[in-house]
Amino acid sequence: MEGLQLKKYAELLVRSGGNVQPGQLVVIGCAVDDAYFARIVQECAYDAGAKEVVMNWIDPASTRTRYLRAEDSVFDEFPQWRVDWYKHHDDRGAVYLHIDSSDPDYLAGVDSDRLRRFSKVSSIATKEHSALTMSNALRWSVCAIPSPAWAKKVFPDIPEAEAMEKLWAAIFKCARADGADAIADWQVHSGNFSERLDYLNKMNFDTLRITTGLGTDLTLGLVKNHIWAGGGDVGKDGVPFYPNIPTEELFTMPDRMRADGRVVASMPLSRQGNLIEGFEMTFKDGLVVSYKAEKNEQTLADIFTMDEGAKRLGEVALVADSSPIGKMGILFYNTLFDENASSHLALGKAYPNNMENGTEMTVEERVAAGCNDSFTHVDFMFGTPDMKVVGIAADGTETVFFENGDFI
Amino acid sequence: MEGLQLKKYAELLVRSGGNVQPGQLVVIGCAVDDAYFARIVQECAYDAGAKEVVMNWIDPASTRTRYLRAEDSVFDEFPQWRVDWYKHHDDRGAVYLHIDSSDPDYLAGVDSDRLRRFSKVSSIATKEHSALTMSNALRWSVCAIPSPAWAKKVFPDIPEAEAMEKLWAAIFKCARADGADAIADWQVHSGNFSERLDYLNKMNFDTLRITTGLGTDLTLGLVKNHIWAGGGDVGKDGVPFYPNIPTEELFTMPDRMRADGRVVASMPLSRQGNLIEGFEMTFKDGLVVSYKAEKNEQTLADIFTMDEGAKRLGEVALVADSSPIGKMGILFYNTLFDENASSHLALGKAYPNNMENGTEMTVEERVAAGCNDSFTHVDFMFGTPDMKVVGIAADGTETVFFENGDFI
Repeated sequence: MEGLQLKKYAELLVRSGGNVQPGQLVVIGCAVDDAYFARIVQECAYDAGAKEVVMNWIDPASTRTRYLRAEDSVFDEFPQWRVDWYKHHDDRGAVYLHIDSSDPDYLAGVDSDRLRRFSKVSSIATKEHSALTMSNALRWSVCAIPSPAWAKKVFPDIPEAEAMEKLWAAIFKCARADGADAIADWQVHSGNFSERLDYLNKMNFDTLRITTGLGTDLTLGLVKNHIWAGGGDVGKDGVPFYPNIPTEELFTMPDRMRADGRVVASMPLSRQGNLIEGFEMTFKDGLVVSYKAEKNEQTLADIFTMDEGAKRLGEVALVADSSPIGKMGILFYNTLFDENASSHLALGKAYPNNMENGTEMTVEERVAAGCNDSFTHVDFMFGTPDMKVVGIAADGTETVFFENGDFI
Repeated sequence: MEGLQLKKYAELLVRSGGNVQPGQLVVIGCAVDDAYFARIVQECAYDAGAKEVVMNWIDPASTRTRYLRAEDSVFDEFPQWRVDWYKHHDDRGAVYLHIDSSDPDYLAGVDSDRLRRFSKVSSIATKEHSALTMSNALRWSVCAIPSPAWAKKVFPDIPEAEAMEKLWAAIFKCARADGADAIADWQVHSGNFSERLDYLNKMNFDTLRITTGLGTDLTLGLVKNHIWAGGGDVGKDGVPFYPNIPTEELFTMPDRMRADGRVVASMPLSRQGNLIEGFEMTFKDGLVVSYKAEKNEQTLADIFTMDEGAKRLGEVALVADSSPIGKMGILFYNTLFDENASSHLALGKAYPNNMENGTEMTVEERVAAGCNDSFTHVDFMFGTPDMKVVGIAADGTETVFFENGDFI
C-alpha cells in the first residue's frame, strides 16, 4: 500500500478515531507483523502532540502456540503485572488505539476450554479497564489492516498479493478512507447519523418488533430512558471520538428481561478461530432458552456458559442494508466490518452510555434498570434485505420505521 | 537462512544457552522484526518442556522515535508495572533468553542526556533483577541474529541481501553453530576452557601487568580469592548454562581500588548508537583520572557520570587473538562479538561469582573486599596481537603467561 494513503489512514485513527489531544498518553496495540503501520500511527500521535506513545505488541502466532503447548494451569491465571499495566495507563488518561489484522482462524483447533477459561480470568482481571472504556471515561478506537492470512480467508481464490491489495481497497472503502480527505469525509458521515438518532430518541419506543424472511421474529423491550447512539461518541471530558473505524450502526440498550421470540443469524459468527454457521436462538423473558447451529455449535454454547449475562442481550443495532459495507457483500470474518454490514444484537455486557445517567450509576443500579452486565460482549448479525422493524410506543401505538432493510 | 540451520541455532540458545528445564518458565526478549526467529525459539523451548513461554517484544525503531519525540519528563520515570513484570517472572524462576539484532546506530543523534537519564532510572528500578542474573540465581542467555541495518553497518560495501547472508555466516562461525551438531560442539568448546581456568585459578595472581604496542601499560590488582570463569556458568541450582553465545573469554574480578596506568582501546566502542573511537583512559588507585577520545568523547564522558562505580573496573577478560572471532577480523559493532574477539576490561559492576562466596555476600561486604558496584557495566577492548600479560604473585614472583596475543 502506498505510503501517503497509509499515513492518511493512520491520521484518521489518531485524529478522528482516538482524537489524541496535546500532552496525552497514547497506547497502540498492534501485531508484531504490522510494526510498519504501528510506527506510522506512532509518528501521527506525536504529530498530534502526544506526551508519550506506548507500543503494546501482540503476536497471534505465538499466542496460538501458547494455547497449544503451555501447561494447562496457566490458562486459569491472569498476571497481576498486566492488571497494573492497564491501571498505569488508565490512571494517566491514555487513549487506546488498536490495529487489528488477525487471521479469523488463528485460534482454530485450540482447546475451547482453555480459551474459555483464559477469556474469563482476563475479563475479570481487566474489569475496571473495561468499565472505563465502555463508559467513555477513556477514549479508544479500533481500525483494521490486512494480513496475508486474513486476506486469503476473505478472498480464497486469488493469489495472496492480489488478495492483500483487494482487502486494503475494501477496508479503505468501508472506512470511508478512500477519498482525498478522510477526516473531512468522516465529519460529513457523522452528520448523517444525527437525523436518524434524533428521530429514534424523540420517539422513545418502549419495544421493537423485528422480523426477517429468514425467520427472525423478536419482540424486544428497550430500557426506559434508553439512548440511541451511533457514529461518533463523546468522552466524559467532552472530547468526541470514534470507537470503531468503520462505523455504520445506530445502537441502543435492550431491557435484559424483555426479549421474546426467535432470532436467526444472517451471517456466520467468527469466534476464537471458529466459524459458527447457520445458527439461531430463542429468547423468553430476555433469556436464551434454546439455540442451535449447523456448524461449531459448541463454540456458541461456550459463550452462554461464560456467565448469566452472556445469555441475555446488551445491544441492538440497526444498519441500513444500503451502507457501503452492506452493499459490498463481502464476509470479512471480522466483527468490526461484519457488524457494520448488517443489523445485529449483542449477547452480554451493555454500554452504560446507552442509558440516561448510565455511566453515573453503579452496576447494581443499572442492572435493576434493565441494563445487562456480563464479562463478555458478542455481536452477531441477523439483518437481511427484507428486514422490518416496528416501533411500539408505551401507549401501544405502532410505527414502522425500518422496512426492506433500510430506514424509511 | 535455511529453516533447519535456524532451528539448530534456536536449539543452541534454548538447550545450551539457557538450558531450559522441564516445567520452567521462559522469557524471550526479541525485536518485533525478528518474530520469525523468536517463534522458532518459542517452539524449541516448549520442546524442552517449558511450562510457559512469555514473549517480550521490543522495537528499536519505535524506541528511537520515543527518544526523539516524547515529552522530556518521561525519561526520568521507569514505570512500576515493568518492575513488577520482572519480579513476576523472577519469582517464578524464569530463564531469560534474548535475541539481539540491533542496528548499532539506532540511537545515533538521540539526545545523550535523555539516554543517560533513562538508563539511570532503568538501572535503579531493575537493580534486583540485575542482581539475580549477575549472581546466577537466574539463568539467561543472549545470542544474535542479523538485521538489515546491522548487516549493512558491518558490510557497507555490498548489497543488503548479500550483507545479511554474510553476517549470518559470520555469526554461525563465531557461535560455533556452523557444524552438524552445535550443542555437541559447545561441549567440546567448553572443555577447552577448563585447562586454562584451572591454571589461572591455581596461580591465584595478586596482580596483572598488561602491556600492548598501542600504549597500554596497566598494573591491575585482582581481589583476594578471585575466581577466573569462562565458557559455561553454573546457576545457583546447579544447572549449567552459557550466558553468551558466542563466548571466548576468560574473566575475573579486578580490585576496584588497584588499577594504575594507561589503557588504550584497540577497537571502537559502540554505545547508545554512537561509536566512540580512538579512546584511552588513565587510572590511579582504581579510578579513571583522565580520558580522551578522537570521536564521541561526550558519549564516553556520559559513562563516567553514571555513578562512582562507573569510573572503576568490574571485569578483566583475556581472549586469545587466535579465537575464531579474533581471526575473522570483523568489527561487528556489537559487544557480544567484539568482546569475544579481543581482551577487554569492563567499567562498572563486577560479577559477584568472580569472587569466592561473592554471591552470598551483601553488596557492602563485597565492596569492602574490592568488588566494584555500579548501575552500569560497559565492556571495551584493548587486546592486540602483541599483548603481553605478566602475573605477579603475592610474594612478588613474576610469570609471563600471555604473550603475542595468546596464552603461552
